[in-house]
Amino acid sequence: MAEAGRSLAHAVVLLSGGLDSATTLAVAVDRGMKCHTLALDYGQRHRAELDAAEAVSAALGASSHRNVSIDLRAIGGSALTDDIEVPEAGTSGIPVTYVPARNTVMLSIALGLAETLDADEIHIGVNAVDYSGYPDCRPQFIAAFQDLARVATKRSVEGGPVELITPLIHLTKAEIIQLGTDLGVDYGLTVSCYRADERGRACGRCDSCAIRRAGFTDAGLPDPTRYA
Amino acid sequence: MAEAGRSLAHAVVLLSGGLDSATTLAVAVDRGMKCHTLALDYGQRHRAELDAAEAVSAALGASSHRNVSIDLRAIGGSALTDDIEVPEAGTSGIPVTYVPARNTVMLSIALGLAETLDADEIHIGVNAVDYSGYPDCRPQFIAAFQDLARVATKRSVEGGPVELITPLIHLTKAEIIQLGTDLGVDYGLTVSCYRADERGRACGRCDSCAIRRAGFTDAGLPDPTRYA
Repeated sequence: MAEAGRSLAHAVVLLSGGLDSATTLAVAVDRGMKCHTLALDYGQRHRAELDAAEAVSAALGASSHRNVSIDLRAIGGSALTDDIEVPEAGTSGIPVTYVPARNTVMLSIALGLAETLDADEIHIGVNAVDYSGYPDCRPQFIAAFQDLARVATKRSVEGGPVELITPLIHLTKAEIIQLGTDLGVDYGLTVSCYRADERGRACGRCDSCAIRRAGFTDAGLPDPTRYA
Repeated sequence: MAEAGRSLAHAVVLLSGGLDSATTLAVAVDRGMKCHTLALDYGQRHRAELDAAEAVSAALGASSHRNVSIDLRAIGGSALTDDIEVPEAGTSGIPVTYVPARNTVMLSIALGLAETLDADEIHIGVNAVDYSGYPDCRPQFIAAFQDLARVATKRSVEGGPVELITPLIHLTKAEIIQLGTDLGVDYGLTVSCYRADERGRACGRCDSCAIRRAGFTDAGLPDPTRYA
């Protein structure tokens, strides 16, 4: 979290269209960072979450927003990009919704953008509490990527590396929702559902919907999610 | 280089269309690996190097070939993707042809593919001798990415990580050319030039052309490069 509070520092903030990354952006804006948001179009089944990312970026006052397209369908291996059925909540182990190396790819692209913009920080809303068993949401993954960023770029050779900032990593879903609500996040703009319809309405039954719904209940706050 | 010699092991081999990655593939095939080649369409100015990658893959008998498209022009910052003039040879420092975080992005995608294919190794033709000053060709970068791969994927949680193999890292350009020639690589298929024309013919004057030409001279071998 080095120098996270200084004014006019630039940050690349990864947005997925979901609740966690919207909260991450709100925290960065609240700290006075100049935020450049980045969403990854990786062949999701529909554009609802990309539209959500763009709406969140505008609503929270980011300085710029970019979509980077990458065709991860050429790689395959996930229910989020392939024709594999998304399961109901409660499945154990690493779920079929895991996109191989997705956070590694997203952070790599963010690293390139941070270098181009001469940004000081990359913010990502990974979470080690309600993380659905994804290996690339764990603290040891984040620490390894921070080490990589220290040697990977021109900036790391000439100036200093970008810092990886993970403001949500030790928060529960309820704590994240409370934090974002305090900062004015409109969670009605966000889409967490793995099988939302083309208008961004949630199924209410997948693992991601279950975790999100329980978060609002635990926080004692109304759930603004648009369900199909 | 763990288990690099066992038969029927699967490897993802990154191909750029250039001389080094062609040699890397030849080494992997010679070791009896079942090779899946991967090229990155990152908004290069023309398709000549992608065509070269595909030709090299077929000529050396890879089991499969994939192009993954990613629009790095949304990030910008390089003479290889933007409208920045590619300089003549002899410029010092990290050159404008450096694509921000390119090897990080390429290796991340290779990591995802390795996971989907259950591949044991990722082979990349980085080189720390004639490396043009790119930060992401250095041994410390490779070591950091190997550490990341140990924690980044489902495979790393459930089985074991993929090994990063860099057979060229300590070879001179002349040694690489000698090695590939011994293994039957047709370097006439490869394109190294930063500003090759649409048919893959080299300019003969950029940094990459100068290093390549000197390599053939030092190896005492004829240069099959097609110059414009």
